Amino acid sequence: MSKMLKVYIAGPDVFFPNGDDVMRHKGELALSYGFEPSTMAENDLDPKGVSAFAFGCQISAANERMMRESDFVIANLTPFRGIAADVGTAFEVGFMRALGKPVFAYTNSARGYFERLTEDFYEGKATRQSDGYIRGPDGMMVENHGMVDNLMLDASVDESGGVLIRRDVPSGDLYNDVAAFEECLIEAKRRLG
Amino acid sequence: MSKMLKVYIAGPDVFFPNGDDVMRHKGELALSYGFEPSTMAENDLDPKGVSAFAFGCQISAANERMMRESDFVIANLTPFRGIAADVGTAFEVGFMRALGKPVFAYTNSARGYFERLTEDFYEGKATRQSDGYIRGPDGMMVENHGMVDNLMLDASVDESGGVLIRRDVPSGDLYNDVAAFEECLIEAKRRLG
Repeated sequence: MSKMLKVYIAGPDVFFPNGDDVMRHKGELALSYGFEPSTMAENDLDPKGVSAFAFGCQISAANERMMRESDFVIANLTPFRGIAADVGTAFEVGFMRALGKPVFAYTNSARGYFERLTEDFYEGKATRQSDGYIRGPDGMMVENHGMVDNLMLDASVDESGGVLIRRDVPSGDLYNDVAAFEECLIEAKRRLG
Repeated sequence: MSKMLKVYIAGPDVFFPNGDDVMRHKGELALSYGFEPSTMAENDLDPKGVSAFAFGCQISAANERMMRESDFVIANLTPFRGIAADVGTAFEVGFMRALGKPVFAYTNSARGYFERLTEDFYEGKATRQSDGYIRGPDGMMVENHGMVDNLMLDASVDESGGVLIRRDVPSGDLYNDVAAFEECLIEAKRRLG
């Protein structure tokens, strides 16, 4: 019997209206593919009498411990509160990448970062400038690497042996749909299992 | 003579209208405090005949190499294209944190994440719900740890022995002002030098 691989489930899901359900569902799915989801230990958090800041540091320390214990990560990069992935999730992808662990990721919004930036954020008003770069009306350079998000994220998936699943999920199900998460599990089983 | 410590300068500055000038200025400032800024090697990038995606991966690989070579990071967490830090920068903070390297950071917007989220993003429409959490009209939970950004970022600074400088810079200078960056250098010299 080989040891069960442990997966760190990263994403802004904890903030979702149905966050508890989504997290539980993801944990069950991971187990059904033979992976152990990393979980908080009972004594990780002790909010009594500590500041909100110190409590935040407790959560961070627990997450860092879980990441170090995990063998790979599946990150939800669906745009969160804007056109980009959740920054906490981006931090965690970088953390796992630095440790040399495979990064699997998905987004429930199939459009690329360039499209979200030029169409949604700049509303079609980004144009090519005399310096050769496409820039928004605010002068900010618009990059286009045909990627889902910032190149550090996409490249870390590519270079670490993971996959990045893009799905076009209707906006009403953007935060419930775990089909792309399950595709990551299937690929992880095939590549790491 | 002790070896010069190397600093990885992280941030969305490369996208700024005056990105080249800001980056050069930051490099000179770092040197003036006795730190060597990490730089690309001449053969890091070879865009000829490769896809935009592959070129993005070259940039990523160069950044990862520079991070591994560096002794600490100074990250620009000023909100970028929305209410949160740049996700590429968040990735890099996580990367350096996983390697156990001190994280120094700053933001040119002194307001906290809670204020940006409730005032700017939710325009005052987030309210406390029956489950005890403050939530936006979209049902998303609003966290408040008295932090600058996602707790993984603030905590990584705090736990790694760095500092997080908040400055209230007028919006016209948000992307030029390097005073907070210089404060990070002063603190890094005091703590690591």
